[in-house]
Amino acid sequence: MSLYSAYFYSEEVNSLFSEQATVAQILRFEAILAESQSVHRIMPSTSAEIIAQCCAVDLIDIEKLKVEIKLGGNAAIPLVKQLTRIVKNNDVEASKMVHLGATSQDVVDTAMVLQIKAFLAWLESKLNQLRQLLIALTQKHRSTLMIGRTLLQQARPITFGLKTAGWLEGIVRSQNRLTEIQPRLLKLQLSGAVGSGNASINQEVHRTMAQELGLTPSFSWQTQRDSFAEWAGVLGVLVGSLGKIAKDVSLLMQTEVGEVMEGAAEGKGGSSTMPHKRNPVTCAALLANATRTPHLVATVLSAMPQEHERSAGLWHSEWEVLVELMTLTAGSVERAIELVSGLEVDEKRMLANLEVTKGLIYAENVSLALAPKIGKMQAHELVEKACKMAIHQHKHLKEILLELQLDVPDLEELFKPENSIGLSLELIDTVLRVTNDSN
Amino acid sequence: MSLYSAYFYSEEVNSLFSEQATVAQILRFEAILAESQSVHRIMPSTSAEIIAQCCAVDLIDIEKLKVEIKLGGNAAIPLVKQLTRIVKNNDVEASKMVHLGATSQDVVDTAMVLQIKAFLAWLESKLNQLRQLLIALTQKHRSTLMIGRTLLQQARPITFGLKTAGWLEGIVRSQNRLTEIQPRLLKLQLSGAVGSGNASINQEVHRTMAQELGLTPSFSWQTQRDSFAEWAGVLGVLVGSLGKIAKDVSLLMQTEVGEVMEGAAEGKGGSSTMPHKRNPVTCAALLANATRTPHLVATVLSAMPQEHERSAGLWHSEWEVLVELMTLTAGSVERAIELVSGLEVDEKRMLANLEVTKGLIYAENVSLALAPKIGKMQAHELVEKACKMAIHQHKHLKEILLELQLDVPDLEELFKPENSIGLSLELIDTVLRVTNDSN
Amino acid sequence: MSLYSAYFYSEEVNSLFSEQATVAQILRFEAILAESQSVHRIMPSTSAEIIAQCCAVDLIDIEKLKVEIKLGGNAAIPLVKQLTRIVKNNDVEASKMVHLGATSQDVVDTAMVLQIKAFLAWLESKLNQLRQLLIALTQKHRSTLMIGRTLLQQARPITFGLKTAGWLEGIVRSQNRLTEIQPRLLKLQLSGAVGSGNASINQEVHRTMAQELGLTPSFSWQTQRDSFAEWAGVLGVLVGSLGKIAKDVSLLMQTEVGEVMEGAAEGKGGSSTMPHKRNPVTCAALLANATRTPHLVATVLSAMPQEHERSAGLWHSEWEVLVELMTLTAGSVERAIELVSGLEVDEKRMLANLEVTKGLIYAENVSLALAPKIGKMQAHELVEKACKMAIHQHKHLKEILLELQLDVPDLEELFKPENSIGLSLELIDTVLRVTNDSN
Amino acid sequence: MSLYSAYFYSEEVNSLFSEQATVAQILRFEAILAESQSVHRIMPSTSAEIIAQCCAVDLIDIEKLKVEIKLGGNAAIPLVKQLTRIVKNNDVEASKMVHLGATSQDVVDTAMVLQIKAFLAWLESKLNQLRQLLIALTQKHRSTLMIGRTLLQQARPITFGLKTAGWLEGIVRSQNRLTEIQPRLLKLQLSGAVGSGNASINQEVHRTMAQELGLTPSFSWQTQRDSFAEWAGVLGVLVGSLGKIAKDVSLLMQTEVGEVMEGAAEGKGGSSTMPHKRNPVTCAALLANATRTPHLVATVLSAMPQEHERSAGLWHSEWEVLVELMTLTAGSVERAIELVSGLEVDEKRMLANLEVTKGLIYAENVSLALAPKIGKMQAHELVEKACKMAIHQHKHLKEILLELQLDVPDLEELFKPENSIGLSLELIDTVLRVTNDSN
Repeated sequence: MSLYSAYFYSEEVNSLFSEQATVAQILRFEAILAESQSVHRIMPSTSAEIIAQCCAVDLIDIEKLKVEIKLGGNAAIPLVKQLTRIVKNNDVEASKMVHLGATSQDVVDTAMVLQIKAFLAWLESKLNQLRQLLIALTQKHRSTLMIGRTLLQQARPITFGLKTAGWLEGIVRSQNRLTEIQPRLLKLQLSGAVGSGNASINQEVHRTMAQELGLTPSFSWQTQRDSFAEWAGVLGVLVGSLGKIAKDVSLLMQTEVGEVMEGAAEGKGGSSTMPHKRNPVTCAALLANATRTPHLVATVLSAMPQEHERSAGLWHSEWEVLVELMTLTAGSVERAIELVSGLEVDEKRMLANLEVTKGLIYAENVSLALAPKIGKMQAHELVEKACKMAIHQHKHLKEILLELQLDVPDLEELFKPENSIGLSLELIDTVLRVTNDSN
Repeated sequence: MSLYSAYFYSEEVNSLFSEQATVAQILRFEAILAESQSVHRIMPSTSAEIIAQCCAVDLIDIEKLKVEIKLGGNAAIPLVKQLTRIVKNNDVEASKMVHLGATSQDVVDTAMVLQIKAFLAWLESKLNQLRQLLIALTQKHRSTLMIGRTLLQQARPITFGLKTAGWLEGIVRSQNRLTEIQPRLLKLQLSGAVGSGNASINQEVHRTMAQELGLTPSFSWQTQRDSFAEWAGVLGVLVGSLGKIAKDVSLLMQTEVGEVMEGAAEGKGGSSTMPHKRNPVTCAALLANATRTPHLVATVLSAMPQEHERSAGLWHSEWEVLVELMTLTAGSVERAIELVSGLEVDEKRMLANLEVTKGLIYAENVSLALAPKIGKMQAHELVEKACKMAIHQHKHLKEILLELQLDVPDLEELFKPENSIGLSLELIDTVLRVTNDSN
Repeated sequence: MSLYSAYFYSEEVNSLFSEQATVAQILRFEAILAESQSVHRIMPSTSAEIIAQCCAVDLIDIEKLKVEIKLGGNAAIPLVKQLTRIVKNNDVEASKMVHLGATSQDVVDTAMVLQIKAFLAWLESKLNQLRQLLIALTQKHRSTLMIGRTLLQQARPITFGLKTAGWLEGIVRSQNRLTEIQPRLLKLQLSGAVGSGNASINQEVHRTMAQELGLTPSFSWQTQRDSFAEWAGVLGVLVGSLGKIAKDVSLLMQTEVGEVMEGAAEGKGGSSTMPHKRNPVTCAALLANATRTPHLVATVLSAMPQEHERSAGLWHSEWEVLVELMTLTAGSVERAIELVSGLEVDEKRMLANLEVTKGLIYAENVSLALAPKIGKMQAHELVEKACKMAIHQHKHLKEILLELQLDVPDLEELFKPENSIGLSLELIDTVLRVTNDSN
Repeated sequence: MSLYSAYFYSEEVNSLFSEQATVAQILRFEAILAESQSVHRIMPSTSAEIIAQCCAVDLIDIEKLKVEIKLGGNAAIPLVKQLTRIVKNNDVEASKMVHLGATSQDVVDTAMVLQIKAFLAWLESKLNQLRQLLIALTQKHRSTLMIGRTLLQQARPITFGLKTAGWLEGIVRSQNRLTEIQPRLLKLQLSGAVGSGNASINQEVHRTMAQELGLTPSFSWQTQRDSFAEWAGVLGVLVGSLGKIAKDVSLLMQTEVGEVMEGAAEGKGGSSTMPHKRNPVTCAALLANATRTPHLVATVLSAMPQEHERSAGLWHSEWEVLVELMTLTAGSVERAIELVSGLEVDEKRMLANLEVTKGLIYAENVSLALAPKIGKMQAHELVEKACKMAIHQHKHLKEILLELQLDVPDLEELFKPENSIGLSLELIDTVLRVTNDSN
């Protein structure tokens, strides 16, 4: 993360995945395991209490842990060793009960799920905020006229609200996915070395522990990684939808377009030698993240065919990649909130850009208006001819039509963008109704 | 697809995505559009009927179409031209009504959704079949003893049913995802050039058309591609879960392991010069597909930040990739059904392999049995020493223990795999109950 | 490939990878193997001749082959069977000599290398053509003034030739890579089942066969796939560089920019209802391909850690992906040639766009010119103030400076783009010199 | 990196890419730029000296920098600001000369190249070490007999040296790639805002600076990213080749195979409750890295089509991904050295495993020996029958042949692995000759 921890990421979320936070979740697993086992009389409650007391991050030598991870091959093995030693210093009997019946993958997977759960809470709250911002933006610009563009070419008028309604719908669908995925995702891993369970972690202990941690009890998923892969995919989709917003904004910020701007801030996006520049600095972060995340998703998918009851390498490939995916997602969500909340919309420039083609974007209107009089075919041909004249003579299409003395009814009306936005307003209203409802 | 159309793919599903099938879906769009417009009096019913009659694949010059696609940039533009000419030969008035109010992306996207819908029906039926096969396999081998392996090392005994229960659960979760995704996925694209709709494709026409096609009405998603990306992810997860099955089988088929075999077939997987070989030919296809699909998913995710109201390139990148993803998925599902239904299980070899370590896999049992008598610490140390002796003297651990004259209660019982499978049976039963229920 | 065979691909290159072409290369392997073995008296020359005569695509039942591939697990096993039967019908003795000492991977890998070799010849010729086009374009527009853009914002003037010189250099570097890679890539696979060779394919046979096929003799690379992965990477880089050209052109084609256009063609990129549109249809294909290829490269890289002496699945995943990568590359190269050769440059619009910021792009010039008189700091502050006034009053910076009655020497000269292009011309000349030299 | 910095990475190389190291390279750029400009009298040597003195990491407030990067959009803008302030505190005149004529991308790209250069030096030295280890291993096990395996099935005997010769060749080819790529990769970026150069960074300054930094002078490659993408590909290929070694070792370490073992170390790969386990902990890291890197390569390739003269997002996506790719590569190289240098080979187990099929792997030998006497066809049929009997009766093939009283000449010799390794020894010797030569 280093130098870019604030730019591509969210400092808040980074802290959920720090070394300390990861160790803390592993210790939490061990503490709750012991407590759950004492509830079901697998161990004396005194032992469980001592273990729980020893499960404190401050007691762990993290630098030593990092060296030992290289030998043990995962974080749980050396950490449990350190913990056991700490407990032993307090109570020899209790030290025999540490990590009872569990396997390292139980710990590592469940700790990851607990971090996911914390991240999800953050994410849901932030996405609600983003949704509200997009609702407000859409309401505000419901009727703000602008050109719609296809294949980077001006096409027909829309309103800016129509564009932002599309952004909004995408975010709301991601929220729905996040809701649906949780029962499959937030589940306990606790089934021992080969997933067969054992007396120390029997079904009662399993259920109690799951409840204490706010997770779903589960059959072993040590080498069934579909839920992590699905999770990766859902995050990838969200980052992609946020990237779409940034793509639009960055294109609209082009000097030659200039319809919206990232909000200004002291020292942001400027250039001392080029005073006219307003660099899409926030968009760049969103687009960078959207470039990176698809490949992180692919990594998790590539790691799915894991061997037998625990994989040698594929499991290991998930650890950092899932974290990278979540922290980049967090960065994108934070940047998107900043982007949308600070967005400056230049309605005048939008109107001006509707005139760039000198009326050609309204050619179809003219054609349709002429048709009842002179027939569709002839109308189409006439207008095509007029358009060519307009282009070659660098004149406005309306001017050409007047020169040609065509009797077009309500000529002025045909060249007004507000008459060319189709059903934009009712479509926007439908989106607003639905996305507010699903709140 | 060429030479490998039967190996990596499903011939049945290939036909859903042939040139003819794609053209047929585009024509179906145009026919139903006209009919829906005639219902709501946007066009005369005679015109709609003529258009519908002309929407026949046989009338289309597909070779010409392929050349024109290069100029038009998508399949709809030249196909609509061909169709219009055909209609015109029948009725000039009707020809003016072809494709009325729609844009090429409306057609191309909706045709893809219709192909997805057809594919989904096939997929759901096949996954039900696979689920039933896995349920039967799990029931049959509920108590079939074998070694569980972690990091490719023998660890503790399980039953083969425990392994297949994991396979089964993965498939059932994929089925659930396929159900959940449909409302977001199977939706009509029909909003005109810039997504704003227009009088010819008003909300009534939109709803009627959606209903006729069995799709959900929708706000324009021309550049909101999250549902396609989600779809890609869901397929990627499924292929990964199928790859996991193949990974296990291919490893179990190793000459030195020999616990399961792909079903034999005339000319399958053999070698004339190496009579002992039973190549995992079906597994290889499943693993190849699982190697390829993550990257296809990443492509669709990479294509998400599409520009403005229609993308120049990113949209285009989806067309073949989505098809490749679906056809590879189909191949994997078919291969998995063949694999599971033909699987040969060598229960004797499984039992024999439980003896490979000469009792070391039961060391923990001994340790636990000794502990009450001599204390945990001492028990652990003693057993560790016995294990080392067993390894160095190439003797069975049981033999060493007898030589050491340790008073281990019920020694024979400790070395029986059926006493070392933890909660395997009850865990399997739970999976069977749940996966049968969700049928 | 189907509907899009002409759009994303090259028909010429598609034919190098057709079913027939692949079968032909496999048969060529068998014919040359037999001949090489007869040269070194491993088999009678009569047998070799009969085998060679039977190695004809027309004799092969390809539909049958496709079904058998599913059972055999690769194309060589069933094809050799068919061939053996054909030879046997001619000469029983010769039929015992078919495929002597070789293994299926020898055939499949070498056939792929032969296809790569044919593709490379095509590619090198096309890239020379593209290079010449880019050299000519750069020469023509060496001094064509336009704005340089960073982060999608107007920055400082350049010439169009500076931009195209960058495109040119990228292509030339790809040509160099294609030259360097060949000794590693174009090598014979011929080492028998486990790569150990045998008497029938001894070193003499190996060398003769390599020479006959124009390949390098090689140690077995059955599970050392680095050269295919490198090849994939080199193609991916090329498609990326071509995508960069398309990205620039598509952005320059925007209605609001309008500086270059794809060449017009009957029926190309137009819209009957939107006469002003000139869709970047060719760019879209190039960008679509550049979106897809990175993931195909990743697939080949993912498939590298192949098991033992032949992989079960990873090898299989290469077959179609390598072909897809080559055919997409071919499509991109063809499209790029079409794009560059037809490119229309609107020099007037380029000049006009240099005025969009009303002189702000020259602010630094003014600052530098003032500095000697009033000091850098003060100059900078003054100009900054003037810029702000220009922006707020919607006036040209020059006008503001005159109003402020600043004594700027040679004011007019400071606002001429030709005085602000730095070393563009000499940099271009260097690129032209080097890229012509390396011809 | 956090908890896994020692496991997946190399601590040595991590330090080349730390925050401090990155800042140091940026400062080095600024110092050498000033010095080069003073050489060519663009600035007074006193200013250059002061600037150089101020270019000290300790003077930079890195925490502040990280916050400002979020506003500036890259590391150079705020860092140059901090540097300018520091210089100004020493000498106002000099402070006007900081970063003269350069643009932020000049700094960021060149700093990355300097880090790559440092990494390359480390990498080349380590790969030489690895090559020597592989040469020694191959020499030692030139004649160590083992079974060759295809599709995870026992096939024909080889020697372990044949396998390691393949590993060795892959590494040597990667070394060659690293040599070839350097002129394209290690190049200066110094061309100002839009790549056009300017008087302050004229060709003389450019050349002097390149020489001082040990880089190649270059035309601007601000948006021509092919060399970084090629670099990514070359690293990806290397990590893949290392992953292949790990794949083989991890499979050979399986309990049921047991032919090689990772070197033992206190606390490494063991399990206190499962004394027989020797987990492939080092292989797991290598395989995890080989799972992750293909996708990082794809990211860099995906980022190639960068806009105009500087990209908004794609450039930004490279920064962390290139570093991740290099640090993971370093981890893989270090782990591979540990793996190869500590590898334990169990030659007895290799011999024992050659007997697993009870002679079936020699069936072809028998067939060839019988052929001259009774004809190929009949020989083949007879042996096939004998093999089936051997399998069904669980007898050794030799035993069956004796029972069948077939007059096979030198029967014993046919069942010796050393007679069935083809040209293994001479092939190995060729590899050793070539790889030692290219030293």
